[in-house]
Amino acid sequence: MEHVVRMTGPLDPRGAWQAERCPIAASLDVLTTRSAFLLLREAFYGTTRFDDFAVRAGLSEPVTAERLRELVDHGLLEREDYREPGQRTRRRYRLTDKGADLFPALAALMQWGDRWLAEGGAPVELRHHGCGEPVAVELRCADGHAVTPGELDLARR
Amino acid sequence: MEHVVRMTGPLDPRGAWQAERCPIAASLDVLTTRSAFLLLREAFYGTTRFDDFAVRAGLSEPVTAERLRELVDHGLLEREDYREPGQRTRRRYRLTDKGADLFPALAALMQWGDRWLAEGGAPVELRHHGCGEPVAVELRCADGHAVTPGELDLARR
Repeated sequence: MEHVVRMTGPLDPRGAWQAERCPIAASLDVLTTRSAFLLLREAFYGTTRFDDFAVRAGLSEPVTAERLRELVDHGLLEREDYREPGQRTRRRYRLTDKGADLFPALAALMQWGDRWLAEGGAPVELRHHGCGEPVAVELRCADGHAVTPGELDLARR
Repeated sequence: MEHVVRMTGPLDPRGAWQAERCPIAASLDVLTTRSAFLLLREAFYGTTRFDDFAVRAGLSEPVTAERLRELVDHGLLEREDYREPGQRTRRRYRLTDKGADLFPALAALMQWGDRWLAEGGAPVELRHHGCGEPVAVELRCADGHAVTPGELDLARR
């Protein structure tokens, strides 16, 4: 059972409770689709314009429109109108703080895909701009220890 | 543009390429559904039996059966038959190393849900068994620096 989280306090035994206010489930109620994740990826890559989102995420225009609207409604992206001199008004989309805070989830999926699914190796990598070293997603406790699932307790707050 | 990852080398400008072998997309081709994530959550909580998976993830038996089969087919769970003395043979499901390596992705969704969606505060928390301190998902470079999206470069390998 090396991969399993230990249940503690009122959470032990597991059979005595159910995850009724699960934050993972709540997150997945917002991020319901693969296309939502891919549009967020593009927002992190700096994409701001509708046409670019559709092309770069490989989505149809109706799907892109619906998904961007959902991401705005959930407060992950914000939409703003802007106009460059001599051009018509355009809309652009930017990550809010709430949206940007999803980066670790996307980076974790990227890391897992690289490790377990990439044929011919990972195509790209994240590096720390300051020092150039590769960046990974880690679980770490407030005392600074790197932690694996088998070293975790789940506790009621 | 504080939340945006910098494109470097042949990835700059962004318009010159598309994410054709994206590991995030590949991961989402495996984890296609909310129910797959919830069953993995249960596996990390130590659930092993079909009935417990269905009840605890709040899924119908047909959905549970199909989803567990997919997770086994993708190599995230392994199924084994076991028999306790005097009982009929049962199946149980355990996380493989490949499945267990998804924990950071689930923990990242949990952390985000706790921060941005939980009404009345987060119900549970992960703690390091060794020292009792709360555990968070972090982006960190090989040199040990904590990193935010705005401090990241995306580079070809």
